[in-house]
Amino acid sequence: MKTTKIFRIIAATMLMIMYSAFTFAQEVTTKTLPASVTNDQRYNRAIHIMAMLLIGFGFLMVFVRKYGRSALTATFLLVSTALPLYIFAKAQGLFGTAEGEIERLIFAEFGAASLLIAAGAVLGRLKMPQYILLGLLFIPFYMFNEWVILGGGLGLIPAGTVMDTGGSIVIHAFGAIFGLGVALTMTTNQEFEKTIESDATSDRYSMLGSMMLWIFWPSFCAALVTPEQMPHTVVNVIIALAGSTLATYLFSVSLRKKVSIADIANAALAGGVAIGSTCANASHSVALIIGILAGGLSTFGFAVIQSRQQKWMKLIDTCGVTNLHGLPGLMGGFAALPIIHGLNMQSQVEGIGLTIVIAFVSGLITGKILPIMGRKAEAYEDAEEFLDAE
Amino acid sequence: MKTTKIFRIIAATMLMIMYSAFTFAQEVTTKTLPASVTNDQRYNRAIHIMAMLLIGFGFLMVFVRKYGRSALTATFLLVSTALPLYIFAKAQGLFGTAEGEIERLIFAEFGAASLLIAAGAVLGRLKMPQYILLGLLFIPFYMFNEWVILGGGLGLIPAGTVMDTGGSIVIHAFGAIFGLGVALTMTTNQEFEKTIESDATSDRYSMLGSMMLWIFWPSFCAALVTPEQMPHTVVNVIIALAGSTLATYLFSVSLRKKVSIADIANAALAGGVAIGSTCANASHSVALIIGILAGGLSTFGFAVIQSRQQKWMKLIDTCGVTNLHGLPGLMGGFAALPIIHGLNMQSQVEGIGLTIVIAFVSGLITGKILPIMGRKAEAYEDAEEFLDAE
Amino acid sequence: MKTTKIFRIIAATMLMIMYSAFTFAQEVTTKTLPASVTNDQRYNRAIHIMAMLLIGFGFLMVFVRKYGRSALTATFLLVSTALPLYIFAKAQGLFGTAEGEIERLIFAEFGAASLLIAAGAVLGRLKMPQYILLGLLFIPFYMFNEWVILGGGLGLIPAGTVMDTGGSIVIHAFGAIFGLGVALTMTTNQEFEKTIESDATSDRYSMLGSMMLWIFWPSFCAALVTPEQMPHTVVNVIIALAGSTLATYLFSVSLRKKVSIADIANAALAGGVAIGSTCANASHSVALIIGILAGGLSTFGFAVIQSRQQKWMKLIDTCGVTNLHGLPGLMGGFAALPIIHGLNMQSQVEGIGLTIVIAFVSGLITGKILPIMGRKAEAYEDAEEFLDAE
Repeated sequence: MKTTKIFRIIAATMLMIMYSAFTFAQEVTTKTLPASVTNDQRYNRAIHIMAMLLIGFGFLMVFVRKYGRSALTATFLLVSTALPLYIFAKAQGLFGTAEGEIERLIFAEFGAASLLIAAGAVLGRLKMPQYILLGLLFIPFYMFNEWVILGGGLGLIPAGTVMDTGGSIVIHAFGAIFGLGVALTMTTNQEFEKTIESDATSDRYSMLGSMMLWIFWPSFCAALVTPEQMPHTVVNVIIALAGSTLATYLFSVSLRKKVSIADIANAALAGGVAIGSTCANASHSVALIIGILAGGLSTFGFAVIQSRQQKWMKLIDTCGVTNLHGLPGLMGGFAALPIIHGLNMQSQVEGIGLTIVIAFVSGLITGKILPIMGRKAEAYEDAEEFLDAE
Repeated sequence: MKTTKIFRIIAATMLMIMYSAFTFAQEVTTKTLPASVTNDQRYNRAIHIMAMLLIGFGFLMVFVRKYGRSALTATFLLVSTALPLYIFAKAQGLFGTAEGEIERLIFAEFGAASLLIAAGAVLGRLKMPQYILLGLLFIPFYMFNEWVILGGGLGLIPAGTVMDTGGSIVIHAFGAIFGLGVALTMTTNQEFEKTIESDATSDRYSMLGSMMLWIFWPSFCAALVTPEQMPHTVVNVIIALAGSTLATYLFSVSLRKKVSIADIANAALAGGVAIGSTCANASHSVALIIGILAGGLSTFGFAVIQSRQQKWMKLIDTCGVTNLHGLPGLMGGFAALPIIHGLNMQSQVEGIGLTIVIAFVSGLITGKILPIMGRKAEAYEDAEEFLDAE
Repeated sequence: MKTTKIFRIIAATMLMIMYSAFTFAQEVTTKTLPASVTNDQRYNRAIHIMAMLLIGFGFLMVFVRKYGRSALTATFLLVSTALPLYIFAKAQGLFGTAEGEIERLIFAEFGAASLLIAAGAVLGRLKMPQYILLGLLFIPFYMFNEWVILGGGLGLIPAGTVMDTGGSIVIHAFGAIFGLGVALTMTTNQEFEKTIESDATSDRYSMLGSMMLWIFWPSFCAALVTPEQMPHTVVNVIIALAGSTLATYLFSVSLRKKVSIADIANAALAGGVAIGSTCANASHSVALIIGILAGGLSTFGFAVIQSRQQKWMKLIDTCGVTNLHGLPGLMGGFAALPIIHGLNMQSQVEGIGLTIVIAFVSGLITGKILPIMGRKAEAYEDAEEFLDAE
């Protein structure tokens, strides 16, 4: 409990300092529409993404039967740490700038989404204040990677040459690989013996989260595309999700004899992950194929790879983010190579490679720092930290 | 399991063929607003409707206690089958065309909504792959009816002379009557002896679905009205829903002594169903009256008609779609006769009559085809098809 | 049951009369954007607020374990009473006018939100028809207060001189204090002995409601601001909510040793309540501070004040609306004094004072009237009024 107190003071101080001087008021402008119209279009997508962050990711993680209060509280804390931290840092010009307040908010939400993915890898094995610390450590690494890959940071990759409209690489793959890095350093032997239990109620909550993500995924991918690109992008995302949903059912029943509801809740979304890099450019037929492949790959991951990964890599990935965000994210990034005409292939490949390296190293570092606040005594249980939890 | 495999191959093949050549890029244009603004307005409604399809219809059907995982997975599969199928077919010019990608998406969502209604009639009695097959069969019939009633197809009814802005007739009544047709051919004697159980948790999930439908219903009805008609339409829908919600409570407690939460979750929505044909035209006072009458009629259906219908028609309508979508939908279609000035009465009546015939016949045909994939052994239970289900 | 019948007739009659002559068709106009664009922007916010009313407030109240069906049905009835009543009365010019249909709808939703807050104070202790009567009584009092404080009614405060963009004073504080008035007159000795129970499932439902409110809160506060003010307002609200969420965790664990999930579900929202008066004007750093203070104050209320309040004031506040809406609402109203330059300080203070008086007196009156319909026999239980409830 002592570390908790220390942390509280640090966290409070950091947040207070961050905001002390912080006032800004630029406005987004575009050529074709009045700023107020464009702002409003983006605002609606920003709110859709917020629904994904809290109810989507939050309830998807409620599948752990005795850890529902914790998963939802952790989601609240992660989002509440990430958004102001990103908005503040960006307003101060850290790792590039964003044009307007709503645009900055959307970028911050992307960062929060990636953080939630990373947290999914170690869900149930951090204490509440450690989630906050995870957020404080993650966001700067995330912003650094985003700046290097998309913004021309350090001069490694020319700005704007990596195609990643909906974030297959810098959001999904980054978050998943960062999470793997954390899990690699933090997984204890004790945790290997502990089963992650779900039941009918936690499964249905999990499906609620999954559906919330499915519904608003088009807004995630189309958040910052031009108004002209929007319709095609949106329909592509929906077709890719439909493809992965059907493929998930077919693969789940084929690989396991009976369907796993965890496959459905997770792998059905893989089409959204994988279409991210090419959503504005692919034809609808290609979007469908990407969706089907991603759904199949992800289901194969949950049904076959996950249990082996535990032994090979000596780590537990609580929510299977490797299978939902890692593999489909990388697949999506590489899918741009054959699909997008005039793509700078070298940039795309370097972007994927660098993201893997930066995410993994920063995850390892974070996994070394988090235990300074101690360790959760009993994994996947609310009772240690919440009142009245059985 | 053999039929399942056959089906998988068929489904995959059909979907792959459908999309092979499929590229299109027209844009919506209107006189008063730039295309990008109109697209964006429609996009937001399209997303609202998506929330209705997945969480709305999906969770409303979770009231069946032991069939929650199945109901939600079925919803995913139905929507993932219907949307690409409709979008593809329309892009190829099957049964008429739609102007732009977002408009086509909205029409596809309408089709998916009608499909979910139809599926509600036989919920719990199909195997998962049968829901996919149901979708593949339903959508062409639905598109045919839509084309005949609204688009002047076959030259039976002049295009644009049937008033059905929010789909009382072609979406709600069509889906419900199609579902009755399927139920009529498929209901087994064994199913009459099986009780459909709910509990406190499944009831609360069901209310979540109901509320999601209530909230976004104005977007459903106003999805394609002109910007000038939007405000009046939206307020009409809300007033009709408020009317049916209050009426449902009053009728439920009067007819049953104690309130049935199933009445509340379902019949409260009847105002939305019934206002569909006249939502852009009725005055607010008339909208209230339609809502109250629809709520009363629907509650009467659930409380009194449903148990008799089972004996008379020798069928089980799992979700009571007759009472929520069938009767209020027909009521709404006929309500246009006295309400809308200058309405082509003959067209309206013919439209309703033809919809009844087409829906019922195509439902019967579908009900004959579905059993080629076998039958679910134990109705209303997850355990047959899902892992770890009790 | 006899009073129930009488009530039914009264309610039906009142509603029918109200709507008899009721037709209107004005449109919103603004200088900078076409009416149809502005209408559409406001429409999206109106729908967001609807999600807050039904799923947000509704599920937040499901924390009472055995009263979930009732809490959700009551939410339906309260909203369905409030919206048409407000819309009708405003269209008739009662206590001022609203420019267009969508604007009137948004004002009506604000009234419904305030009503739901008031109902939270006595949740579980009214019979279903009493919730409807509560709505019928509440809305005129609410409209009167809104008119006096914001619209210059009775000439007490010059119109437009009280700053309350997001309703800290006239929505949150008014609702909470009205609810206290009702609770004060209605709480029985028997109720003091009855424990309000929650469990893991009801807690997770409650978090769903809380997250729904969090997500859409920016739309609540920015519903009627100018397009130019929107981005700053929205980011302010999100920062305030993030601040209160973090503060709630820190205070809950400090004050109670273990975290109370009820604190998280409720006090995390206090930042949204308290930023209401200044959301368009405060800097982001000030928004953060307001959020942190509100979260701390609210958590302190739940953890420390609530149990003492029961003894001092001899009342039970079921949902703790004093702590979530009362204190943070008043804090938000007073926060405008130092923050907003050029504020009419006298008006602001008078506005807060008058709201307290009007709310409390009208709550007392309402609490005297409600018992004419009898009393609920067993508090916090569905079984008295719902079929199949255990």
